[in-house]
Amino acid sequence: MLLKDCRFVLTQDAKRKILENVDILIQKNTIREIGKGLRVEKNEKVLDCSSKIVLPGLINAHTHLGMGLLRGVSDDKELHEWLADVVGREGKLTEQELYEGSLAGCKESLRFGTTTVADMYYPLAPTAEAVIDSGIRSWLFISYFNAISPDLDSDKIREFLLSEEHQAHRRITMGLAPHSPYGCTEELIKGIISYSKKKALPKMIHLAETRKEQYDIKREKGKLPGTYLYDMGFLNGSTLLVHSVWLTKEELRMIAKAGAHVVHCPVSNMKLCSGGVMPLKEMQKAGITVALGTDSVASNNNLDLFEEMKVAALLHKQHYWDPTIADAQTVLDMATLNGAKALGMEGKLGILAAGTLADVITLDIPLHLTPLEKARVVSHLVYSANGNDICDVIVDGKLVLREKEFC
Amino acid sequence: MLLKDCRFVLTQDAKRKILENVDILIQKNTIREIGKGLRVEKNEKVLDCSSKIVLPGLINAHTHLGMGLLRGVSDDKELHEWLADVVGREGKLTEQELYEGSLAGCKESLRFGTTTVADMYYPLAPTAEAVIDSGIRSWLFISYFNAISPDLDSDKIREFLLSEEHQAHRRITMGLAPHSPYGCTEELIKGIISYSKKKALPKMIHLAETRKEQYDIKREKGKLPGTYLYDMGFLNGSTLLVHSVWLTKEELRMIAKAGAHVVHCPVSNMKLCSGGVMPLKEMQKAGITVALGTDSVASNNNLDLFEEMKVAALLHKQHYWDPTIADAQTVLDMATLNGAKALGMEGKLGILAAGTLADVITLDIPLHLTPLEKARVVSHLVYSANGNDICDVIVDGKLVLREKEFC
Repeated sequence: MLLKDCRFVLTQDAKRKILENVDILIQKNTIREIGKGLRVEKNEKVLDCSSKIVLPGLINAHTHLGMGLLRGVSDDKELHEWLADVVGREGKLTEQELYEGSLAGCKESLRFGTTTVADMYYPLAPTAEAVIDSGIRSWLFISYFNAISPDLDSDKIREFLLSEEHQAHRRITMGLAPHSPYGCTEELIKGIISYSKKKALPKMIHLAETRKEQYDIKREKGKLPGTYLYDMGFLNGSTLLVHSVWLTKEELRMIAKAGAHVVHCPVSNMKLCSGGVMPLKEMQKAGITVALGTDSVASNNNLDLFEEMKVAALLHKQHYWDPTIADAQTVLDMATLNGAKALGMEGKLGILAAGTLADVITLDIPLHLTPLEKARVVSHLVYSANGNDICDVIVDGKLVLREKEFC
Repeated sequence: MLLKDCRFVLTQDAKRKILENVDILIQKNTIREIGKGLRVEKNEKVLDCSSKIVLPGLINAHTHLGMGLLRGVSDDKELHEWLADVVGREGKLTEQELYEGSLAGCKESLRFGTTTVADMYYPLAPTAEAVIDSGIRSWLFISYFNAISPDLDSDKIREFLLSEEHQAHRRITMGLAPHSPYGCTEELIKGIISYSKKKALPKMIHLAETRKEQYDIKREKGKLPGTYLYDMGFLNGSTLLVHSVWLTKEELRMIAKAGAHVVHCPVSNMKLCSGGVMPLKEMQKAGITVALGTDSVASNNNLDLFEEMKVAALLHKQHYWDPTIADAQTVLDMATLNGAKALGMEGKLGILAAGTLADVITLDIPLHLTPLEKARVVSHLVYSANGNDICDVIVDGKLVLREKEFC
């Protein structure tokens, strides 16, 4: 497949180079070449991109796709009311409804230019099916919560994790996710650590979403949640720490030392009133990779990473009284490069270059992205665009969306 | 024209009634009737709205459309750098460029479901032309700044304010806008007060955008800016106070007493780091009407009131640690009813009922607005939708946008 005459290509390479009027040649699931005047074999697809902005597919580093049918059921309520309402409804969802919600979420994500989701849920089989059917790329983290936790050594889990279908399916990578420090016993978290080591699985956890969690864990365990996880050996280069709103500098040092990653979910945090603001500046200073996630549609209530990028930028400018923080390029990196790095895919996803996986999206140039010139394109993507501006979506070399319609 | 079988109609009446499967009959520029099984004369347009959400056209209560070509020229910079850069470029815009920028802004607004804009600029003639050409409804406030101020009594201004073209054009209402308490001399503001009284013109002003303004005016005038304007007689029922981030309770009492209105611009305030957060709760308690505005595309950087509603909700929930504040209905009211009230059009705009002006918008129901049911429709509009979801736009009884295409 050839993307011909791309008006602008945001490579997201080390220099954040923006190329003009180039072609992108895709072979199988890989980008073969980016350059001028590239040729394609007969019978291969050619997409005219002369009035398109082209960039790497976005990476949504935290979702709960199974909750897809719960969008808008419970808003503007106190957290405990919201939780009781949503969890109550969640318990009643059938496997079929989990599949339908997940499929809607996969398709909404693709429609909005997200080519990879990192999802956390249990049961996950319906979501895995939706991922396969929709064509999106995913990391699927089985969620463990004390009360409703699958037995790690059960045949069912082993079978699911190692099923031929999933193993063979290069768009799915499995992982493990203890819900949170307060939602799992120490024993359960330790079990997950050793199991994930044995099977070489990535890990995800909700961490420091509220101030209450910080106080509770400190009182119970004698240490802050980040330190508690560090001391247990939970933190390493394949660990994603979601929310991380209330972390202290002490915890940030440990996270940085262990090479763990943070997933920022600003819309969800603001909507559910986590209070405070995730210490982005301090994380940047500590050298921690910050990716971006929408959280579920029950707390956002959409899966639009363009909106998430803009809100992230606004929140931190507002919070620090500093317009230079969370600049457009920084938040675009969160939704591309940093997501890839957090998922262990640095140089493979979140970037467009010869040899990277062919997850590519294009936007057309409606009125609200004009006037358009090279110096304004990153600003327009972050501050002016929305998910609906996406035109074409390619995942793993396959065209999933063309001119805003699913293929 | 008949909107047939509307799936949901948000009337925005006193009870915020949501009607299902009803027709809306429009005659000339007015809504004639809302009900079931309405009939239309032969040769009149019928729009099938059986899979549409219908609501009053949104009201953007603060824009500077003339700056349309400056989108994305200067982001992520300190305020003084931003100002110098933007004002520098602004000074170089030709009348033709002001027209082009304004026309782009009018069309972007319409495309995103905004049927009324309240604009503040000088010179305004190019914007007035764009308003006429685009079909949008507008309040146009001539901006006065000490250094670049038109002479109130000049023939040109009088001619412009009272020109037959504008007077005859029911989509344009003229007004006066001293830029800000710090940008105008006391004498100039007093001149504007008396001129606006004489001609019965509404007024708009930037107020309390930064903390610096509060300190500066207090030091210079011996009173806070809100009090300063109150004592001068600037505040009344036809005054719009834009930003109002740093107002004190004392000032809020005076604004409430005078019946003046506030225009909230959350995205611009966050992006430019005004610091602090507009005291919404305190304004609500004082009984002040709060409308919603995007500000210019140089500080937002789009004109999407759907995004603005969501960010408004998120900002105040975050700020007050209270998910019940700025609930979905409250922010939808800001962008409809409250905008109308601030412009003196209560019961005429921002509401759908027999006898109101026919400014109507429809959205289709894409994946990200599902599952859809009556109880979720307001939530979906505020938390899940974006401007691109708009399908049809009717202004003053005239179809301007149909199925996402300009007519």
